[in-house]
Amino acid sequence: MSYWHTDETHDPARTSWVASAQDHGDFPIQNLPYGLFSPADEAPRAGVAIGDAILDLAACVGAGLIDCAPLLEGQLNALMALPVAERIALRRRISALLSDPAHRPAVEPLLHRAADCTLHLPARIGDYSDFYVGIHHANNIGRQFRPDNPLLPNYKYVPIGYHGRASSIRPSGDPLVRPRGQRKPPDAEVPLVGPTARLDYELELGVWIGAGNDLGSPIPIGEAADHVAGFCLLNDWSARDFQAWEYQPLGPFLAKNFHSTISPWVVTPEAMAPFRIAQPARPDGDPAPLPYLSDADDQAYGALALTLEVYLSTQAMRDAELSPMRLSQGPASNMYWTVSQIVTHHASNGCNLMPGDLLGSGTISAPTRDGYGSLMEISSGGREPISLPSGETRCFLEDGDEVTLRATASAPGNVSIGFGECRATVVPAR
Amino acid sequence: MSYWHTDETHDPARTSWVASAQDHGDFPIQNLPYGLFSPADEAPRAGVAIGDAILDLAACVGAGLIDCAPLLEGQLNALMALPVAERIALRRRISALLSDPAHRPAVEPLLHRAADCTLHLPARIGDYSDFYVGIHHANNIGRQFRPDNPLLPNYKYVPIGYHGRASSIRPSGDPLVRPRGQRKPPDAEVPLVGPTARLDYELELGVWIGAGNDLGSPIPIGEAADHVAGFCLLNDWSARDFQAWEYQPLGPFLAKNFHSTISPWVVTPEAMAPFRIAQPARPDGDPAPLPYLSDADDQAYGALALTLEVYLSTQAMRDAELSPMRLSQGPASNMYWTVSQIVTHHASNGCNLMPGDLLGSGTISAPTRDGYGSLMEISSGGREPISLPSGETRCFLEDGDEVTLRATASAPGNVSIGFGECRATVVPAR
Repeated sequence: MSYWHTDETHDPARTSWVASAQDHGDFPIQNLPYGLFSPADEAPRAGVAIGDAILDLAACVGAGLIDCAPLLEGQLNALMALPVAERIALRRRISALLSDPAHRPAVEPLLHRAADCTLHLPARIGDYSDFYVGIHHANNIGRQFRPDNPLLPNYKYVPIGYHGRASSIRPSGDPLVRPRGQRKPPDAEVPLVGPTARLDYELELGVWIGAGNDLGSPIPIGEAADHVAGFCLLNDWSARDFQAWEYQPLGPFLAKNFHSTISPWVVTPEAMAPFRIAQPARPDGDPAPLPYLSDADDQAYGALALTLEVYLSTQAMRDAELSPMRLSQGPASNMYWTVSQIVTHHASNGCNLMPGDLLGSGTISAPTRDGYGSLMEISSGGREPISLPSGETRCFLEDGDEVTLRATASAPGNVSIGFGECRATVVPAR
Repeated sequence: MSYWHTDETHDPARTSWVASAQDHGDFPIQNLPYGLFSPADEAPRAGVAIGDAILDLAACVGAGLIDCAPLLEGQLNALMALPVAERIALRRRISALLSDPAHRPAVEPLLHRAADCTLHLPARIGDYSDFYVGIHHANNIGRQFRPDNPLLPNYKYVPIGYHGRASSIRPSGDPLVRPRGQRKPPDAEVPLVGPTARLDYELELGVWIGAGNDLGSPIPIGEAADHVAGFCLLNDWSARDFQAWEYQPLGPFLAKNFHSTISPWVVTPEAMAPFRIAQPARPDGDPAPLPYLSDADDQAYGALALTLEVYLSTQAMRDAELSPMRLSQGPASNMYWTVSQIVTHHASNGCNLMPGDLLGSGTISAPTRDGYGSLMEISSGGREPISLPSGETRCFLEDGDEVTLRATASAPGNVSIGFGECRATVVPAR
């Protein structure tokens, strides 16, 4: 039951001697997410975010402050693969180093100002799989592509997923080149080729796989939580016009694989322990999950008390010094399947998951428009533009638009933690 | 125009001092495919197949016989990424070492009996994408899943593809565990969970990516051939019952990602140069490829004179010492799109391909049943069992069945070359 483990690292009274960590919305000492960073021009190395600073964990190992060899590798895959007990021990050690003033003299020289550092993808992502567990999104999109048949008969039995592209995943901040491709307007005789006219974002929860499984050996639902190394935000950029034309019969391909943006900090299951909540009950009449996807603990603790937000800033808004506009806000618990259920389903046929694999939840939308997780939904497929404070309107994204995803976990009696930004700006097609 | 380059290495009069290379159906000196092999218990290293032997290329570099640092890495990704001119130079050097008797004293000690070696995956496969360019297969399967609508309107404009699973690709010889999963018979109220009852193979051509492209920068059709490092056979094992239930709306997932088998030798574009043929003309009335997929040279030389075969051997057949039965034979030119067209299409939205990525053609079927590339087609969806020499019948694969794919390239005035085996045996579900 590792995923409900709390200890002194979660104590709301615990503070860090790093001043900026106090009341830091994202990275108080109760969070301690891992990342791969470069100070100035130096080589990438493991770090942990604390307030506005990053602690160089590789340097901590070098200085004898931490005993954890995987922190010396140039990727976090080996760190992610650690057994849960070792991950918990590492977290406790880092929390002690950053809270106990006695450690300050040794540790402080190993801190870097985050603003001076570059954040990289935390792991070598072997495979990236994307799911479709946001049931309100599935309904909204399904209605646009298949008006008579929005939710297919398999949806409430199968955590629907598909494979995505690992090579084009990029960390927050990397600009997104508007993709070219084929689209076929209903009145066109042949498809047109050119930059997408329906560029969209998708608000998703990302899940980092920790310990893997051998090919041919499924992961029982009761063990699935131990195979999760952390969480991030994921923007699964989508070209809706390409998607509508290409997606049958084998699913989305070029409509999705041109770029995906993630928040670069790995928020651990340990950090999320206080924010575990019960999976919302299925509506009356829905089938119970099949036995291989059923687990009482997972139902009791398998959802996350996590608020997801999307912000938009256009070039004109930035020129006028207007703040980004929030497009939506909603809870991550609008997932029809839990993280453990998607992990177990993915491996149920013996498919081997590997440390550093990334799973996406699929777009998470709330039932109402102020919580829709994509412009395709917010603009009703491009028919209802939204108005921006600059006087502009948008159905889909224009060049220069900047989209930022945010996530905040909160629970009574606990210090809230955040995921950091998942942000990118659209640049013109080449 | 590298893909039509021939030189002395293709000379049909050239022979090797390795006796078994003469009249070797797969690996005469005109082939020289690369692989990653281990002699006995030793570490994997780069090698080249010659007759019944493997030449240790890493040892050749160590001995000063070859000057090519990428051969010293434990994977062939860097070798695959070499510019075409360097690949051609390397091939000429290896061909000289293995043909000129003057080199025999230095080279012969670096040969290993292939039968004593283990073959590995040749590269770290970053991403695996599977296409659907076998038009007769698309028609046959489409008719079973969508009787009224076998070939969708996008098929003749879009080289349809989707992302597959890289982690579960295995070299020839590794057994395949029958997967478990959800299937829903038409008369069942809820899905059943258990081992697949419709296990199938798929006969595909695999394409290894060599030099990659930067994210956001497409690959023009005229340059696509230079991004291909080689070819292999690919068996995209499929659970047809899982596929029918799960594949809408996002495509195949657990029906395909439990295991894929490849032939471990990388047959280079250089080796295939004499076997380039014109892409078959599209049937009257079909649209011309869109401009970004059109290239006169590709139409003239973009197809391969390659015969593909599938053999089946059951446990009962092996017990009775019966030879494997050939299930099908057909030409690879039944691809509606060329290799260059699928490479260019894949990167047309800026998606970055990487050295060591693997593309699958999708199942290649001939127009008639003796050339169908899957049991789903041969057995008409399980309604017309085939009879085996053991007196058994098959609609789909049973435990103990062994499937072997083979490929042979032939052209008048040239020595034929083969791809080696792509073979695996089905073992019971765990």
